[in-house]
Amino acid sequence: MAGKTKAVYFFGGGTADGRATDLDLLGGKGANLAEMTRIGLPVPAGFTISTEVCAAYYENRRDFPAGLQDDVHQALRRVERTMGATFGDPSNPLLVSVRSGARVSMPGMMDSVLNLGMNDITVQGMIEQTQNPRFAYDSYRRFVQMYGDVVLGLRPASSREEDPFEQILAKKKRRRGVEFDSDLTALDLKDLVQKFKVLIRERTKRPFPEDPLKQLWGAIGAVFGSWMNDRAVAYRRMNEIPAEWGTAVNVQAMVYGNMGDDCGTGVAFTRDPATGDKSFYGEFLMNAQGEDVVAGTRTPMPIEQLKSKSRKAYGQLTRIQTTLEKHYRDMQDVEFTIQRGKLWMLQTRSGKRTGKASVRIAVDMVDEGLITKEEALSRITADQIEQFLSPGFDPLAKKAAIEAGRVLGRGLPAGPGAACGRVVFTAEDAEEWVKEKKEPVILTRIETSPEDIRGMAAAVGILTARGGMTSHAALVARQMGKVCVAGCEGLAIHYKSKKMTIAGRTFKQGDWISIDGSTGEVLEDKLETRPSEVVRVIQGKSKAKGKTSEYRIFSKVMQWADSVRHLKVRANADQPDQAKLAVAFGAEGIGLCRTEHMFFGEKKIMAVREMILGEDYQARRAALAKILPLQRKDFVGIFRAMKDKPVTIRTLDPPLHEFLPHTDKEIRALAADLGVKVPKLMARVESLRELNPMLGHRGCRLGIVYPEITEIQVRAIMDAACDVKREGKKVIPEIMIPLVSHASELREQERVVRRAAEEVFKRRKMEVPYLVGTMIELPRAALTADQIAAHAEFFSFGTNDLTQTTFGISRDDAGRFLPFYLDKDILESDPFASIDRDGVGELLKIAVEKGRAARPGMKLGICGEHGGDPRTVVFCHDLGLDYVSCSPYRVPVARLAAAHAELAARAEGRGRKKAGKKTSAKKAPAKKAAAKKATVKKAPAKKAPAKKAPAKKAPAKKAAAKKAPAKKAAGKKAPAKKAAGKKRAAR
Amino acid sequence: MAGKTKAVYFFGGGTADGRATDLDLLGGKGANLAEMTRIGLPVPAGFTISTEVCAAYYENRRDFPAGLQDDVHQALRRVERTMGATFGDPSNPLLVSVRSGARVSMPGMMDSVLNLGMNDITVQGMIEQTQNPRFAYDSYRRFVQMYGDVVLGLRPASSREEDPFEQILAKKKRRRGVEFDSDLTALDLKDLVQKFKVLIRERTKRPFPEDPLKQLWGAIGAVFGSWMNDRAVAYRRMNEIPAEWGTAVNVQAMVYGNMGDDCGTGVAFTRDPATGDKSFYGEFLMNAQGEDVVAGTRTPMPIEQLKSKSRKAYGQLTRIQTTLEKHYRDMQDVEFTIQRGKLWMLQTRSGKRTGKASVRIAVDMVDEGLITKEEALSRITADQIEQFLSPGFDPLAKKAAIEAGRVLGRGLPAGPGAACGRVVFTAEDAEEWVKEKKEPVILTRIETSPEDIRGMAAAVGILTARGGMTSHAALVARQMGKVCVAGCEGLAIHYKSKKMTIAGRTFKQGDWISIDGSTGEVLEDKLETRPSEVVRVIQGKSKAKGKTSEYRIFSKVMQWADSVRHLKVRANADQPDQAKLAVAFGAEGIGLCRTEHMFFGEKKIMAVREMILGEDYQARRAALAKILPLQRKDFVGIFRAMKDKPVTIRTLDPPLHEFLPHTDKEIRALAADLGVKVPKLMARVESLRELNPMLGHRGCRLGIVYPEITEIQVRAIMDAACDVKREGKKVIPEIMIPLVSHASELREQERVVRRAAEEVFKRRKMEVPYLVGTMIELPRAALTADQIAAHAEFFSFGTNDLTQTTFGISRDDAGRFLPFYLDKDILESDPFASIDRDGVGELLKIAVEKGRAARPGMKLGICGEHGGDPRTVVFCHDLGLDYVSCSPYRVPVARLAAAHAELAARAEGRGRKKAGKKTSAKKAPAKKAAAKKATVKKAPAKKAPAKKAPAKKAPAKKAAAKKAPAKKAAGKKAPAKKAAGKKRAAR
Repeated sequence: MAGKTKAVYFFGGGTADGRATDLDLLGGKGANLAEMTRIGLPVPAGFTISTEVCAAYYENRRDFPAGLQDDVHQALRRVERTMGATFGDPSNPLLVSVRSGARVSMPGMMDSVLNLGMNDITVQGMIEQTQNPRFAYDSYRRFVQMYGDVVLGLRPASSREEDPFEQILAKKKRRRGVEFDSDLTALDLKDLVQKFKVLIRERTKRPFPEDPLKQLWGAIGAVFGSWMNDRAVAYRRMNEIPAEWGTAVNVQAMVYGNMGDDCGTGVAFTRDPATGDKSFYGEFLMNAQGEDVVAGTRTPMPIEQLKSKSRKAYGQLTRIQTTLEKHYRDMQDVEFTIQRGKLWMLQTRSGKRTGKASVRIAVDMVDEGLITKEEALSRITADQIEQFLSPGFDPLAKKAAIEAGRVLGRGLPAGPGAACGRVVFTAEDAEEWVKEKKEPVILTRIETSPEDIRGMAAAVGILTARGGMTSHAALVARQMGKVCVAGCEGLAIHYKSKKMTIAGRTFKQGDWISIDGSTGEVLEDKLETRPSEVVRVIQGKSKAKGKTSEYRIFSKVMQWADSVRHLKVRANADQPDQAKLAVAFGAEGIGLCRTEHMFFGEKKIMAVREMILGEDYQARRAALAKILPLQRKDFVGIFRAMKDKPVTIRTLDPPLHEFLPHTDKEIRALAADLGVKVPKLMARVESLRELNPMLGHRGCRLGIVYPEITEIQVRAIMDAACDVKREGKKVIPEIMIPLVSHASELREQERVVRRAAEEVFKRRKMEVPYLVGTMIELPRAALTADQIAAHAEFFSFGTNDLTQTTFGISRDDAGRFLPFYLDKDILESDPFASIDRDGVGELLKIAVEKGRAARPGMKLGICGEHGGDPRTVVFCHDLGLDYVSCSPYRVPVARLAAAHAELAARAEGRGRKKAGKKTSAKKAPAKKAAAKKATVKKAPAKKAPAKKAPAKKAPAKKAAAKKAPAKKAAGKKAPAKKAAGKKRAAR
Repeated sequence: MAGKTKAVYFFGGGTADGRATDLDLLGGKGANLAEMTRIGLPVPAGFTISTEVCAAYYENRRDFPAGLQDDVHQALRRVERTMGATFGDPSNPLLVSVRSGARVSMPGMMDSVLNLGMNDITVQGMIEQTQNPRFAYDSYRRFVQMYGDVVLGLRPASSREEDPFEQILAKKKRRRGVEFDSDLTALDLKDLVQKFKVLIRERTKRPFPEDPLKQLWGAIGAVFGSWMNDRAVAYRRMNEIPAEWGTAVNVQAMVYGNMGDDCGTGVAFTRDPATGDKSFYGEFLMNAQGEDVVAGTRTPMPIEQLKSKSRKAYGQLTRIQTTLEKHYRDMQDVEFTIQRGKLWMLQTRSGKRTGKASVRIAVDMVDEGLITKEEALSRITADQIEQFLSPGFDPLAKKAAIEAGRVLGRGLPAGPGAACGRVVFTAEDAEEWVKEKKEPVILTRIETSPEDIRGMAAAVGILTARGGMTSHAALVARQMGKVCVAGCEGLAIHYKSKKMTIAGRTFKQGDWISIDGSTGEVLEDKLETRPSEVVRVIQGKSKAKGKTSEYRIFSKVMQWADSVRHLKVRANADQPDQAKLAVAFGAEGIGLCRTEHMFFGEKKIMAVREMILGEDYQARRAALAKILPLQRKDFVGIFRAMKDKPVTIRTLDPPLHEFLPHTDKEIRALAADLGVKVPKLMARVESLRELNPMLGHRGCRLGIVYPEITEIQVRAIMDAACDVKREGKKVIPEIMIPLVSHASELREQERVVRRAAEEVFKRRKMEVPYLVGTMIELPRAALTADQIAAHAEFFSFGTNDLTQTTFGISRDDAGRFLPFYLDKDILESDPFASIDRDGVGELLKIAVEKGRAARPGMKLGICGEHGGDPRTVVFCHDLGLDYVSCSPYRVPVARLAAAHAELAARAEGRGRKKAGKKTSAKKAPAKKAAAKKATVKKAPAKKAPAKKAPAKKAPAKKAAAKKAPAKKAAGKKAPAKKAAGKKRAAR
């Protein structure tokens, strides 16, 4: 591996062997140091040993490859020449830092050694040069300690044991009666150096290496070695970073910000990382080391004040930050040091920022002509757009609550956003509290069922003790845009006493709680929330607040996404108001209108129950006839809301027992209402009970055994279609038959549908063009798609059920093993959240091929929950589907993801420009990797090693991705600051 | 279509245009008439209008194609010349019959016209010739009536209306004061002819056609037309005969067996159709028409007595029957007429026979050198072999019971054979009655569960009110070889009162009932049964009874099947005695040993329950350790029984709640036994309850979350393997992991298995080679078989679960719609009985391809219930599987089906001769069609029209196939007699 390409890359004095694009080879730090040098910025000279050497080092059983020594020494000579100092020189010694630098940032995981090159001789040269013995011995003391810890392995393995050097240091301070290191004198420090060396000799049976070259090779080996330390291995596993990548090693001349008052150090962002505002943003300290800026012992000053401390350095820095942003065409996070009035740049990288800042920066940069709209789109992730759509907690209030230990538990982030309300335990109570007491409520249930829908609609948030990301609660909450935390561990609910216990505390009805549906956290007490400006504007409840308004930014992104994408986006909506909202969110049709939700209205459910209890075809038909006018009204509302957009309506799907009560009491009440005998009703309820209802008498199996159900539904649809057409609107109904496994089933149902439709048209003396198609939601349907396509004008993939049957996993019961599977990496991700490409995806592929072969150009879509998952959207685009359909609130995310998919395709030469539209690109469209990165949070681990990894960005933490899709950073001020601290030791 | 080939095929006077192989073109009757003529047998001359003309007739809007008239008239001239009589000749008239004749026999469905050519003139010629005016007018009367009914359409559409001709006839008899037609005089008959003609003129507004040629064309059109009559259409739909096939029309010179005492008619079989015995068998009547033989008014005489009536005809007939059997190389069913001492052959066809006769004839014919063993195999069906293995009712006793209306109801024929015993309703009662009272019992349950197993073992038969062909009762019954009727309609069981009601009658515990597991019938009272000789010999309870014994015949067939087949046959067996039986039935290994059945023993179930209730790994492991020695003993027994044959053992599969009690009472009892608190136990039982247990926490998902379960099982297996190896036997364990959906699952379990095995080997200081593989029983496993093969040394297709998930149908819940689907032809067959090729089969194909691509030559088998289904066995052979595995009692059937598959493959040039063995074939191996026919009862309707249909044999009645796999004929004497009667009118 090594030796194929260059092993050592020099940078300094305006020239560099590497560049920014050499990321894989030089790591993030090395590549950017080279790039900065190359574009003329003041960077202390140094060199980078490539990641390939790291690989060779491990292949070589932790030995350096041949030739490396010469290369390193040669580079070292160049550094000496550039910096005008010599390694080990008694009077003018060159000191260096040795740091790791992987392809993706692994903050704090690997080791560094600073001040390398110091020994009893060079310390004298340093004193001579700085005229500051204390500074020199302090540096020396730090170096010996760091070297002992890192290179010689004296750092205790367990964090419970204290560092032996720290013990000596503490003893010294006690003896000297001082509190801070800074109170120690040069002599104290000199003494410490000697004591440290004695410790090293005792522990390692060898003297401390005085030879700087020996020190250097020891440090290089230690840095390579730290790639395989336990922390790094664990971090990589968690973040799915392949071990094969290896780390580079950066050896760079030291510069110091703590040599005196004309020295300083700081960190800055080219734009505000919290808001995205275009203002130079940062902090610095004079006469300080990098770690002082973040240590909290001294308060750093805002970057503007540097002007008054060092006008020249400030001027230079502001020019450099502009240069860097233009050069990298992205917001940069830089580190700098001023040594005796001279500015040195030590790092630049793409700056971390909040989701909303990220979007604003991307949009602004297009306005500024820095990037194209395609590039902007590529940089904006689904999660970021989601942040525009969800209500949020006040970030400071939430932080305080967390720090005060007010987090009670954690569930699945099933419906994004923040909600705060009084806890209630039944749908009736929810409605009552909202109606009577005008109080917001959190509906808290063991699990929800269709009877709870009105209560869910009334509540601001839903909390359940059981159920996963696609449980009933989660599905309905997302469809309604409600905040939801599902399957909260440790939550016990007692319906009778209207109480719940969690984390050892008991809450009764009416107590305040708060839930974060983006992270899954459940918090006690009332936490203030802020509604989404975008949603309020879309709902017409508020107006956009001018040019910097979130709505303006959101709209612009959506407009760009629409100009790029080919994949259409529809919404799943069952009610007229949902349909209206869907259109407002940009839906281009309804991909799934579930008729069963319409059956749960007060009047309707009784008629449905009558129908179920009907003895024969006539009795059932009579009962169904009562539902007809009610359903028709629903459909009229939906068709009106959708205007000229297609509406896919699915005939009745769930097993009939879902419409019947199950407790003795409820059955008795119903028997009284219907005027039937209790035992008869009980017998019917019992006879409808199924061992595996998911695989039972439902879907088209109902419509086949009871064709009258399909018939009445079609009649309601077509009558409504005629009504709305008569109003002068275009109506495009698409009748969809669920749960087809065999072409004959669809053939039978198609016959019923067409006959019922013809009857309506005849009676109404008008016609409405319509389609008949099917869900592909069973493996057999996918495998025989060619046969089924003979009777289907369209397919819509029902990936929820398809995932259940392909895996043989019931969503409702998976709770006992699926979390375990995800924890143990048996499954990489929840197949109910993001589509399983190898299994379910393969069936989709088969179905698309066979379906289109049998019926060229047939309309294909997806209407499972996956339709709102960005990774799935990309997959659907690549499969050649015509549309995805998801809940209204996910429509913007899907529109963005569809654009990402097209951009990725273009990067691979598979793209299609939209007819009649010009792209505004000034540069080539964004690279594939970038486009993918934006949408796909997590690259599948297995495949990553084979391909080049996504550039520049660390994969999101897996654990976080699972529990809280990447919104944790939202709303925090300068989120990158703290994390960066650790890495930034003295320079 | 027509006109491409010849339209009219002459036969007569020793030459014929057609031959037996022209079946598709000439229909069965025509082809055999031509063949008989061709080989020199005395056949009245005639001609056949081909089936292609029928097709053209319908394409032509029921008009004859051009040129047909000339062809027919030309052929008619040849008939006239050959028979020495002329159509319409006043003194020597030729009379003909016009009959339909389709590719497959459709008895009684289409129309015929006899005595055609008679009119007022030709009747005189007949009188002249026969000197028998009564005979002549009787024939004339019959002809006019038949012509009026069939050709002129006077037969009433509804059978409730009386035939107008019959009304006239009845009136005549009343007037003349006679009872029988035969009491009417020539004058009476002459008068009737005139009255009939008047009726025709009145009804049709046209005179009766006197012109013989007009009569002929009318009759030809009527026969073609009858192809589309309601009865024929319904029959074809039921028997899946394509409408495109069409019928031929046979026009043949009439001969008469009723012209005097030197005349006669009869029907005969070349061997005894009931037993297969090689003796000429048949009946005849002198001076009679064909219909008299079967009408019951006169008692026909045994064929031997013909010798005394007409020595010459008898001698000729016996010679002809020998010729025919040799020529057709199969048992023939012939019809003959003697006209004035001259023998005429009117029909020959392959004779219907009982299953056992069929096998005996095939075996005897090989001994006689008539056919090869391959041909014999091709002729023997799975059903026939099954008849050798099942106990049966005394056929006469059963017939009497049916006629006496003692059939109470009908369920699914879930376990073949006949059983009679006292009805009991619990497993405990079953055991007690058998043990204490020494009485046979029928265990009758709403449905059975694993707890009933000991009761099922004690019973002679099992009857359930619910459940399908693969319900628990059906599965276990077949595995045990027990008679079983499952899902009996109308059966209500009251456990508390120990009573059942069916067909309005109530039975209490101890009452006698009888069940026929081959037909699904439930009968009241005691019906004597006869055990299977073959099973008794195999079980060592009886000895074979010499050369004609059923065991000898059965063994010979099995031996031939083994010499031909490549596909291995294993058995599903969980206990040592089952394993022994499996070997006796010829199993070459165990394909599925379910370990959970071993958990239901008295001691074991308690330990299993302790394990389930265990709080942690250690507690569970301790509980499991108690099961270990017991399981080990089971495995030792199985390994000993299987000697050097492989044994595939599946680790625990069912969800844990199957091992827990569910009623309050049982839970309380268990809590007391285990010393745990009732609420705690209840909570655990509740927490294990699943909404869709089939898709829940089961299979490898158990072993992954609780690796100790897999670990202990493997330890028991490997310890047992070491024990038996120490005895000097070869042990071949194959550990099979169930319900894998993702390669990672198998990877995890493989690790546990190998570690546990290594531990045992280390402790025992010995090794046993073993394999680790997996069930492929989920769609995702099949789709990702390449990934899974990386960890699997073998695949075994679990087609039960695979069918459930591919279709999304729960076997347990399918009762509400699957029967409906089969009735309405939405599904062609029960996918749980015979594999669904398009869906499930496609997944198998994908898995075989991907699996073998990733691991060349990997061992592949099937262990679902389908393994014993002959159609599935053929499919598995063609897929290239190594083995099928089925219940021990199905092993012989599977061995035969595997031979059929190989023979079919050879016929297509895909076959492989077995190494080192010579085939005994004197002729070429049987045709593909024949081979297929033998195994596959029902050709899929959709595909049939495209290919040539199976030769010579009518597809089995669909309805019968569904309910009672073709065993109804078994044991009846001369079953073909009655059915044949209707078709055999006067000749």
